Amino acid sequence: MSGRFITLEGSEGVGKSSNLAFIHDFLQARGISVVQTREPGGTELAEQIRELLLAPRQEKMSPQAELLLVFAARAQHLQEVIRPALARGDWVLCDRFTDATFAYQGAGRGMDLQAIAWLEDWVQASLRPDLTILLDLQVAQGLARAQERSQPDRFEREAQSFFEAVRQGYLQRAAAEPQRFAIIDAAPALIKVQQQIQDVLQARLGLA
Amino acid sequence: MSGRFITLEGSEGVGKSSNLAFIHDFLQARGISVVQTREPGGTELAEQIRELLLAPRQEKMSPQAELLLVFAARAQHLQEVIRPALARGDWVLCDRFTDATFAYQGAGRGMDLQAIAWLEDWVQASLRPDLTILLDLQVAQGLARAQERSQPDRFEREAQSFFEAVRQGYLQRAAAEPQRFAIIDAAPALIKVQQQIQDVLQARLGLA
Repeated sequence: MSGRFITLEGSEGVGKSSNLAFIHDFLQARGISVVQTREPGGTELAEQIRELLLAPRQEKMSPQAELLLVFAARAQHLQEVIRPALARGDWVLCDRFTDATFAYQGAGRGMDLQAIAWLEDWVQASLRPDLTILLDLQVAQGLARAQERSQPDRFEREAQSFFEAVRQGYLQRAAAEPQRFAIIDAAPALIKVQQQIQDVLQARLGLA
Repeated sequence: MSGRFITLEGSEGVGKSSNLAFIHDFLQARGISVVQTREPGGTELAEQIRELLLAPRQEKMSPQAELLLVFAARAQHLQEVIRPALARGDWVLCDRFTDATFAYQGAGRGMDLQAIAWLEDWVQASLRPDLTILLDLQVAQGLARAQERSQPDRFEREAQSFFEAVRQGYLQRAAAEPQRFAIIDAAPALIKVQQQIQDVLQARLGLA
């Protein structure tokens, strides 16, 4: 029996880390074997690709190169981690996946959505997340939270307009696939966000 | 006026390095401004991608990841080096280009040629080499030459059957586009190979 594939999405400062830990523990407490991983990354090679993507650099990265690096890391991650875990019957909980590519490289960078969709089909075949939880927050609020952390990476250095486009890109994806997405308001206190997430996990995945 | 784009192709041990220097000097002696470069690579980021591709590693690289990394490096190289050089009117002399992708990832790894062609169209738009010189040599002879050099990289560790497929892949590409390709027999002494190359440059590019 194949496991379930759950992805957590959202822009900077929406609280993904805390909520990933919450989801992981919630599932594990129900006897589910969970593989928690992230994109870009999740294998040694894919993490090396992640470093190339995130490192600030003088050379201007081509938007096409950026998109192809994201999918190269994804192909590796699928082969080495995600598909084997699902085949074993484990559940996979992934910090960002292809919706992030549509949001960041598509809506954010303006890359052709049809090209992204072609790459998605080619790399993933029919594999899609069973449930995608989108943490949504006003951009200014998210950036204020994110700025409390360490040195900004190459994406975090983008202008606020970039993150506005990313947020709208995510919301459009969610609106187009309401059966897969759950939109969570990330503005309230963490405990209230987690209550919303718990409700979603129980309702969508039939968990107690 | 746009410059000319010349690529040199061939498998391991066919003598690309010596003949690249010869072509470079031949063009420069005729007053042509030549940018000599290589794939994968040619920019700081693209060379970092090259390192990921060539480094032997325990983790088995997904053939899709390999192909996407090759095209990521290419997109960057086109943006930063090849297109600007051609736009300035310089000639570009490149050690391997997309024919190598069809030969190594297509014929060698068995990746779908239509997927490679889609990526070629998406990354290059209409840009294709004006002239591609293919150095052709029996695989056993090329491998014997290549083994005299340093530590084998991830590709050089492949079995002879891989390089047989690569060679046939190259020859099929050349047969399909005889107006762009010139096949050079790389078996004779270097001076004779260079005489063949000089004849090709004079005949195909109208040089004295």
